[in-house]
Amino acid sequence: MLSHIKIVLVETTHPGNIGAVARAMKNMAMTNLWLVSPKIFPSADATSRASGADDVLARATVCQSLQEAIADCQIVIGASARCRTISWPEMTPRECAEHVVSNGSDNKVAIIFGRENSGLKNHELDLCHFLLRIPCNREYSSLNIAAAVQVVCYELFITADLHESVVIGDRGKIPIASAVQMESFYTHLYQALTDIGFMHPDKSKSIMRRLRRIYNRVQLDTKELDILRGILRMSQDHQRKN
Amino acid sequence: MLSHIKIVLVETTHPGNIGAVARAMKNMAMTNLWLVSPKIFPSADATSRASGADDVLARATVCQSLQEAIADCQIVIGASARCRTISWPEMTPRECAEHVVSNGSDNKVAIIFGRENSGLKNHELDLCHFLLRIPCNREYSSLNIAAAVQVVCYELFITADLHESVVIGDRGKIPIASAVQMESFYTHLYQALTDIGFMHPDKSKSIMRRLRRIYNRVQLDTKELDILRGILRMSQDHQRKN
Repeated sequence: MLSHIKIVLVETTHPGNIGAVARAMKNMAMTNLWLVSPKIFPSADATSRASGADDVLARATVCQSLQEAIADCQIVIGASARCRTISWPEMTPRECAEHVVSNGSDNKVAIIFGRENSGLKNHELDLCHFLLRIPCNREYSSLNIAAAVQVVCYELFITADLHESVVIGDRGKIPIASAVQMESFYTHLYQALTDIGFMHPDKSKSIMRRLRRIYNRVQLDTKELDILRGILRMSQDHQRKN
Repeated sequence: MLSHIKIVLVETTHPGNIGAVARAMKNMAMTNLWLVSPKIFPSADATSRASGADDVLARATVCQSLQEAIADCQIVIGASARCRTISWPEMTPRECAEHVVSNGSDNKVAIIFGRENSGLKNHELDLCHFLLRIPCNREYSSLNIAAAVQVVCYELFITADLHESVVIGDRGKIPIASAVQMESFYTHLYQALTDIGFMHPDKSKSIMRRLRRIYNRVQLDTKELDILRGILRMSQDHQRKN
């Protein structure tokens, strides 16, 4: 039911937390765990805290980059507790669950949780379509990572349960663009904007971040992506001819 | 906001779990913790897992009987994972939160969590008005006690928050573009695409429809609109110069 959703942990420090995450996932019928450069793994601490969910640990995929973990995903969501200067499109866990479940199981989903002390970095958030924020006490807002995973998986589980056997009118049969396709689009966009003279070296980073925010949020399907790339190509062709 | 609700832990075995419960509570703005005959307390393990919530531990009330802990409470709810032969009135965490919050803060509430391995005994459940069950994977249904407290406190927090009609996680203070601003953007977009030679008369209508579909869906704010119009202007300027 929720097998198209992967939980991705980035550079987790404490192996006990990885075990507790596995348990939290399995309690909510989720088993697809990815670990990006965990500090210590496998570990007896992880297995002990996993309790009966050591099968989730055993099947976890360890990789070296976040890009690798999310490559095949159409929907990429990053958990974050912090307020940021650039405001990202934010979801509550309930909104996240609604979005994920109503988009159906054809769309692979990654939900990313950052380091225990420092969360996700800005360049990692750039890869996310949405930011997930758990409503909480403003004066004490840092949840334990396994507690955060528990809340998110709980919302996914009950939402999927509610939606089960209810057919939701999905957006159509055209697949949503994957993370790899979106990255290729952003490379193309950057090049085209440079070609038409829009990019100033000192501003290009913040401009690209804002543009990512727009196009990540909209969840382009592959046909829409083709149209936008057609426009980019045309503006470049035009430039080369002159 | 939630100070009339106490979390009661009965004969908790692992002090680390008590600390994790304190953290889960404080994250959701709850601080009223009662411990009935904890095996080990206070403990360095509890303090360490409490992270910044050691104030909740320091103020926790330790007592010898469940009766004592719930004596002043009007609403008593017992958490349980097990199916029982006697059917108890059951609540989900969301129903529990609705019930508790809608009854107002004049009614003192106890939510009781049992032993890690065996939960609450029948004579303890006899003291409860409702049984609280967290929906979960039927084949692996035992949540860690702190994870269970996290889910319940999270539901209480967001329900109380909704009742206060506090808006959670809005996108920021930049206003979303008005319909008039969007129409003006589409006119500009059409002109720029014509200028760079992208628009064929026989296809322009369906292309514009698709582009509208993308940019309407994303709910651009006015600053984002400015950036996109800047790009359009630049591609037109470039075209005119050549």
